[in-house]
Amino acid sequence: MSVPHRAPAELLNSRRSPLLVFAGQSNRPLAQAICDHLGVPLGRSKTEKFTNDNIIVHYEESLREGDVFIVQTFSNPVSDSIMELMLMIDAAKSASAGRVTAVIPYYSYARSDKKDSPRISIAGRLIADLLQEAGADRILTMTLHAPQVHGFFKVPVDHLSADLVLSEHFRQCVPDAHNGVVLAPDAGSIKRASQIARRLDSGLAMIDKERLSDTEVRPRALIGDVDGKTVFIVDDEISTAGSLVETVNIARSMGAKDVYVAVTHGVYSGPAIQRIAGLDVTQVASTNTVLVPESKVEASNGKLAVLDVAPLFANAITNIHTGASVSTLFT
Amino acid sequence: MSVPHRAPAELLNSRRSPLLVFAGQSNRPLAQAICDHLGVPLGRSKTEKFTNDNIIVHYEESLREGDVFIVQTFSNPVSDSIMELMLMIDAAKSASAGRVTAVIPYYSYARSDKKDSPRISIAGRLIADLLQEAGADRILTMTLHAPQVHGFFKVPVDHLSADLVLSEHFRQCVPDAHNGVVLAPDAGSIKRASQIARRLDSGLAMIDKERLSDTEVRPRALIGDVDGKTVFIVDDEISTAGSLVETVNIARSMGAKDVYVAVTHGVYSGPAIQRIAGLDVTQVASTNTVLVPESKVEASNGKLAVLDVAPLFANAITNIHTGASVSTLFT
Amino acid sequence: MSVPHRAPAELLNSRRSPLLVFAGQSNRPLAQAICDHLGVPLGRSKTEKFTNDNIIVHYEESLREGDVFIVQTFSNPVSDSIMELMLMIDAAKSASAGRVTAVIPYYSYARSDKKDSPRISIAGRLIADLLQEAGADRILTMTLHAPQVHGFFKVPVDHLSADLVLSEHFRQCVPDAHNGVVLAPDAGSIKRASQIARRLDSGLAMIDKERLSDTEVRPRALIGDVDGKTVFIVDDEISTAGSLVETVNIARSMGAKDVYVAVTHGVYSGPAIQRIAGLDVTQVASTNTVLVPESKVEASNGKLAVLDVAPLFANAITNIHTGASVSTLFT
Amino acid sequence: MSVPHRAPAELLNSRRSPLLVFAGQSNRPLAQAICDHLGVPLGRSKTEKFTNDNIIVHYEESLREGDVFIVQTFSNPVSDSIMELMLMIDAAKSASAGRVTAVIPYYSYARSDKKDSPRISIAGRLIADLLQEAGADRILTMTLHAPQVHGFFKVPVDHLSADLVLSEHFRQCVPDAHNGVVLAPDAGSIKRASQIARRLDSGLAMIDKERLSDTEVRPRALIGDVDGKTVFIVDDEISTAGSLVETVNIARSMGAKDVYVAVTHGVYSGPAIQRIAGLDVTQVASTNTVLVPESKVEASNGKLAVLDVAPLFANAITNIHTGASVSTLFT
Amino acid sequence: MSVPHRAPAELLNSRRSPLLVFAGQSNRPLAQAICDHLGVPLGRSKTEKFTNDNIIVHYEESLREGDVFIVQTFSNPVSDSIMELMLMIDAAKSASAGRVTAVIPYYSYARSDKKDSPRISIAGRLIADLLQEAGADRILTMTLHAPQVHGFFKVPVDHLSADLVLSEHFRQCVPDAHNGVVLAPDAGSIKRASQIARRLDSGLAMIDKERLSDTEVRPRALIGDVDGKTVFIVDDEISTAGSLVETVNIARSMGAKDVYVAVTHGVYSGPAIQRIAGLDVTQVASTNTVLVPESKVEASNGKLAVLDVAPLFANAITNIHTGASVSTLFT
Amino acid sequence: MSVPHRAPAELLNSRRSPLLVFAGQSNRPLAQAICDHLGVPLGRSKTEKFTNDNIIVHYEESLREGDVFIVQTFSNPVSDSIMELMLMIDAAKSASAGRVTAVIPYYSYARSDKKDSPRISIAGRLIADLLQEAGADRILTMTLHAPQVHGFFKVPVDHLSADLVLSEHFRQCVPDAHNGVVLAPDAGSIKRASQIARRLDSGLAMIDKERLSDTEVRPRALIGDVDGKTVFIVDDEISTAGSLVETVNIARSMGAKDVYVAVTHGVYSGPAIQRIAGLDVTQVASTNTVLVPESKVEASNGKLAVLDVAPLFANAITNIHTGASVSTLFT
Repeated sequence: MSVPHRAPAELLNSRRSPLLVFAGQSNRPLAQAICDHLGVPLGRSKTEKFTNDNIIVHYEESLREGDVFIVQTFSNPVSDSIMELMLMIDAAKSASAGRVTAVIPYYSYARSDKKDSPRISIAGRLIADLLQEAGADRILTMTLHAPQVHGFFKVPVDHLSADLVLSEHFRQCVPDAHNGVVLAPDAGSIKRASQIARRLDSGLAMIDKERLSDTEVRPRALIGDVDGKTVFIVDDEISTAGSLVETVNIARSMGAKDVYVAVTHGVYSGPAIQRIAGLDVTQVASTNTVLVPESKVEASNGKLAVLDVAPLFANAITNIHTGASVSTLFT
Repeated sequence: MSVPHRAPAELLNSRRSPLLVFAGQSNRPLAQAICDHLGVPLGRSKTEKFTNDNIIVHYEESLREGDVFIVQTFSNPVSDSIMELMLMIDAAKSASAGRVTAVIPYYSYARSDKKDSPRISIAGRLIADLLQEAGADRILTMTLHAPQVHGFFKVPVDHLSADLVLSEHFRQCVPDAHNGVVLAPDAGSIKRASQIARRLDSGLAMIDKERLSDTEVRPRALIGDVDGKTVFIVDDEISTAGSLVETVNIARSMGAKDVYVAVTHGVYSGPAIQRIAGLDVTQVASTNTVLVPESKVEASNGKLAVLDVAPLFANAITNIHTGASVSTLFT
Repeated sequence: MSVPHRAPAELLNSRRSPLLVFAGQSNRPLAQAICDHLGVPLGRSKTEKFTNDNIIVHYEESLREGDVFIVQTFSNPVSDSIMELMLMIDAAKSASAGRVTAVIPYYSYARSDKKDSPRISIAGRLIADLLQEAGADRILTMTLHAPQVHGFFKVPVDHLSADLVLSEHFRQCVPDAHNGVVLAPDAGSIKRASQIARRLDSGLAMIDKERLSDTEVRPRALIGDVDGKTVFIVDDEISTAGSLVETVNIARSMGAKDVYVAVTHGVYSGPAIQRIAGLDVTQVASTNTVLVPESKVEASNGKLAVLDVAPLFANAITNIHTGASVSTLFT
Repeated sequence: MSVPHRAPAELLNSRRSPLLVFAGQSNRPLAQAICDHLGVPLGRSKTEKFTNDNIIVHYEESLREGDVFIVQTFSNPVSDSIMELMLMIDAAKSASAGRVTAVIPYYSYARSDKKDSPRISIAGRLIADLLQEAGADRILTMTLHAPQVHGFFKVPVDHLSADLVLSEHFRQCVPDAHNGVVLAPDAGSIKRASQIARRLDSGLAMIDKERLSDTEVRPRALIGDVDGKTVFIVDDEISTAGSLVETVNIARSMGAKDVYVAVTHGVYSGPAIQRIAGLDVTQVASTNTVLVPESKVEASNGKLAVLDVAPLFANAITNIHTGASVSTLFT
Repeated sequence: MSVPHRAPAELLNSRRSPLLVFAGQSNRPLAQAICDHLGVPLGRSKTEKFTNDNIIVHYEESLREGDVFIVQTFSNPVSDSIMELMLMIDAAKSASAGRVTAVIPYYSYARSDKKDSPRISIAGRLIADLLQEAGADRILTMTLHAPQVHGFFKVPVDHLSADLVLSEHFRQCVPDAHNGVVLAPDAGSIKRASQIARRLDSGLAMIDKERLSDTEVRPRALIGDVDGKTVFIVDDEISTAGSLVETVNIARSMGAKDVYVAVTHGVYSGPAIQRIAGLDVTQVASTNTVLVPESKVEASNGKLAVLDVAPLFANAITNIHTGASVSTLFT
Repeated sequence: MSVPHRAPAELLNSRRSPLLVFAGQSNRPLAQAICDHLGVPLGRSKTEKFTNDNIIVHYEESLREGDVFIVQTFSNPVSDSIMELMLMIDAAKSASAGRVTAVIPYYSYARSDKKDSPRISIAGRLIADLLQEAGADRILTMTLHAPQVHGFFKVPVDHLSADLVLSEHFRQCVPDAHNGVVLAPDAGSIKRASQIARRLDSGLAMIDKERLSDTEVRPRALIGDVDGKTVFIVDDEISTAGSLVETVNIARSMGAKDVYVAVTHGVYSGPAIQRIAGLDVTQVASTNTVLVPESKVEASNGKLAVLDVAPLFANAITNIHTGASVSTLFT
């Protein structure tokens, strides 16, 4: 993959025009970076809260017949992020936008993808239905917790993968990555780990876990061999890093040499940064689908790295806008 | 109106059974009070947040074929309240509830009921569509900002009014209320004010305001006469009380004697309590559609009163459940 | 506001083309006037009734991929007008029209916007749903009874206002209009009256009415002061003029000097013209959203004036067709 | 078939109750007759027109959880009949009716069942969609112009046939009916004619017609033999009787002896009665799906007969209400 | 009608482009012939079956924004044909096709168009709903069993007729066709027969049949006169030819001279070819909406003729693509 | 878990009644077994094919208001199975069934649950949408390929698991199962394997595979340790057994002692039985979600065992019908 550095606006010919990119409040730096790659200005819109905590969204330029992309990641406060996105979609449709694509770098509710216990909502499907009811014509997202979540949407979805970015990163950090072992922290991430292992031509291992209750999980065993090897831990997201600490400890106790961690979505909530700062790993990397403030990087004791996926999103938007194939871009 | 004190559960015969009442996190005391009036226990459910700020809702008892009512008011944090309600509705439907009624004492987005400016969302309609997409079979609510918001819903709505409660309250405070004047703070509340005035057999007045921008409004004149009279200010809600302060000041400057205030929804956000504590009024009353914590009442310098509407909701739920007329109850 | 005199067809470049304007039977003169302003011919279509009173609509030119506007006002016979419009929309969609905009200058059912009494239909919402089910992609209308009715539609609505036309008309009739008073005949029209008052920089007054039954209403008081002043009565529509007579009488009894009346929709049904002819007012003006036959003007004893809104509709259609902003046109 | 004379209300046990029958304005005598057969009172509702020609429908008793049947035939004025029915359905649903069945004895738009010419609406399908959008849960109707129209509805339809009533009528009038010939006035009615012929064990003939334009049709030939025979002309409806006159004349010119006519829907519009009065036939019979005023019968020169189908509808409603099979009733 | 021989691709300018034609497995030769007429290559796609008999469809070229036509006839195995078509439609939509038209030369389920007996599906409507749910934006088909089936679809349908092809074929075979008689095998095909008769300016006759059970039908009589005349039997389809044999025998027994048969859809299942080979007719012709393998033609004893409708479909596709009128093409 | 032997019909009290169970053609023995457990007769229905290969389904008893369950597994011919099920659902709904539950023991298209390659259909979602469009009110199924497929349905789904049946079976075959190792044939089945391992308190291992193309997959490594141990291979389905042979061979080559295989869905297509007969395993077990004919068991060289899940389905149906919790039954 070689991402072109910039697709100048004058090349963006399309039956649907103009190309308009707006952003909610959740990750404006990423939206700005995407616009920079696209060579278009970030659209002018304003989001405020009324004194009763209602959100109001206002577009400050015409959207009539435009090919509108709204960038909004589902990061804390997640409910506000989702509600703001739906208000933006609805306002765009009623302002006569030609097509509205919701660009959701991190679709947090993808984790609610099945009935783990009775009488819960499969919220990943519910939010998909709500976004469509609000008027979304398409979705552009990255690394859903499970690939099946794609099927929760009825409208077309372009589902980008950060695998290439993550494996390239490992290879850059560790030249002989093929002698290492990719370690999946649990059964749910084994497919992703297996794909990275193949890209690195490395070994594969997994931790078998047992769910004791809704919130408690206990490791049963490490399947495979990490003794004396560089270990690459991959996952879709890190939030409090509690599970990560445990995975690292198990790997260490089984003789792992260096440990590298890379995930797509760096949520880093609660004690995450403090835990990572004290963690016995060489580095923890994530992409910028979720905004990682500079302060967190600084507090991480040199452990945190952020990988840029704005070029991937910019290219996908270009291809959606011009009707070129998105699938051929990133494989 | 005389609200029966308790409708024992054994009387609640219905083709749809059992009657189940659950509550989100926004106003559990009101839900508990409604259940006490109904003579049924508040249903067991659990709402948590995952470490990535996703909400998870879990019902802890069977809902199969039940006639489910979910009480959730749209108070701060509003986005969480709405999202939690939608997750509860979806989980109830997929857990085979027979019918799900969303009980929304304060539907905050009713204020977003028209296009004040271009390229905004009529969010009151959007949220209505989302609730229905999530699976709501009916809505029970109170004092929508405008009665037309009723028509934003396709499913049946029972729309309760607090007018009777508010006017009874005034009459109790001021025995010769018929000599007073009901003052509408702006054109939007004139209809409500007129109805209260008729109940009190009192006069009517209004402040004519001019919208200078999205956030700035300027009073033009007080239409009518308040000089030397007891003034009753009524509105649908108070949030920061900024507009209330202005209304009171105008009334005072026009010679008003005592001033009483009563609104349906007491949001009391930001500096509201502090302002009310210092306000030159006898009393500010609101109902408990929004939870008013004891601490706010205490900080109000004896100005704040809270009126209980749990009996109204309990009676409406009883009638919906048994198929009796709701409209005949409250007029 | 300065309405351009003509937007020649050759300037109407649009991704959606051609621009096609058709009309039902309810107000063909207005449709023709709009087409004259647009510089396009009125589309050829034929509406007939079968001998069993079924309506049949037949387009006599191809609509494939066209940007179709169908002009139909909801005037007597209203049910036929609505049914004809829905047949035209459905026939246009199944004849492969690219987009169908229903242009409804007078949306009569906007008055059925809330539940005044139990067990009635909020017909304004029902008709909105039916038009969308029939296939309407957008709506263009003027002065809905309440602005909230906009939210009854899920498809985009462009909601024109006649306020500018009406206030300009007053100013032309009465040079010192700022010394006058705008009088709202009831609480429901106070917002509209207030806006006109601000445009005229004049005073404001209102009649407080009490609904005794579904059909009976009794005035309680005139709020504000009209003594010795020129009075401007504004409303959204006049049908039998019964309420107008009452309003004028009250104004007169309170000392009003000259009285001018202007409404958007001049329905003038039953005894309206006879009543107006004998009314103690200088003039009654309405726009041509509803067709006012010459015979009515003649029978009005010189009281009736008709204001032309065809340019407003023509401009809105131009902007919708070319993707320009409609909101910027009329403020 | 032997229609039970009365199904007393106390026998109408059903999970859905109570059974409520309402009627629009189009054929209240039929609705009353159905209610008499059912042993239930006709529900109290009120339909009025506002002065702007809007229809308002008001139910005067509670419908909560009821099994509601609304009787409305699509007779002149058809648009008002349809609009009133849709308002009644919508009002019933929003008043929490448990189920709403539209009882449409004569579904006039069934004749608009295909694209005879380009750019018209298949209105029979459109009206079906509108009724469902308005909230109809089921349909009960009689003798649709073509049986395929049943498939225009997504909701369940019970489609009654008047064939038995019509053939019994012929047999009663003409004891040796099996020596006669059933004559189909055109190709579209040949299937119905063939079924009646089989019931009478009689011959069959048909007039072959050629459509010259939308409104002009020319007979080409009479296929079959009517010479010296009693002729039974059957069709689904008569409106102006123009086509009937022609059919009779052709039959006469081909040597027909006596001529009897029977149709399901007697619309009798325009010159129909006058034509029938002067027609060389023994009798013209129709059912009471459309109200035939006494004055028309009197003006028909003794030619007109009206057959009662109220028992058929009453039985169908009973079976729908109690969950018994409707199909077994009428074959 | 004069069908242009070829519409070169470079002439196919359209707002929706490119024009892409794909085909399922049911009749690829027809799809190829259509593409040859259009001057475009048949799109590359692959259909396979997994080992569990699941179908998988894979497009091998980009469809983004394309105007996609998918040719699939509903021939044996019909369920596979329908399922493959729905998978192709869904895959095309989720691959961002701009518009998807299902081209269904033979819509077999059109025969399930009414409730012949209780508790069956009107499958012609069901399949229509399923195709739309799968994402079909339009339908292009030929000679539906009844014209009302058109109304089973909500999306636009272009309904081609083979009447012209069939009548031209007769005229070519029999120069004095106007002296012959068109014979309808049953009441259901009388309209089609009547139209052909008018084109040939010939006589008309019909066989009256009686349905004894779901599967058994008995002829009652031949209405009209075929003695000594050339007889043209027309129908919409032939499957086992059992009914055809009977029709021919009756015609022969009533004195018919030569017998010619022409139908739109030649299904020829089971013993059909063997029966036709031994049938006392001059020729049996059908179009290529269903693939007739060379082997069947050879086994028919010289009786079978296949008429090409690829030009009709190619012209219709051209006009749909360019937004020209389809109705004007084929009349 | 102890499955009650029989839930007599007289205990099946429910608001929705009667309980009616019908079956398509795909697995009538299972449907009969379920009915035997329920103590109700299998409903009478008839499925035939017309001579043009159209399917016709006919219910031979009334379904009005009934609680209808239709048992149909998606086995070869799968397209016919699906189409027959949809026709049965549609016919049931239009015959006024009160509720229709599709009982799909083996939902074959669950395997099409994500976009493995571009421009394919996520058919598992498509079929879900089609079933709902046909009218299914609920789904009852077993062991979906991935648990996320549950979320493809909007209607409530009861998703049974065969895990308990499979692990009980292993324990019965191998008393010291806790000393064995559960082997997942690929990453996709690791979660299921992990759950079985926990039930057996045994070890866990996995084969890491690499997809070379759409159809080719290559094993990379066996993660974990099987040397000298009893190996339990578990998966969701076996079709040609090609992958199973490979898994067994790898396990053997890594020193596995005895090998036992158990899967939920025994499709056994193509060379499966022959391969299993010659396979170096003690036993291959599957449930009867797919019909395994006696002949296959006989040809398996004593290797094949069939486990009965009819009691699980009967209990689930009982609980759905009576409104009891399904989730509490099977854990």
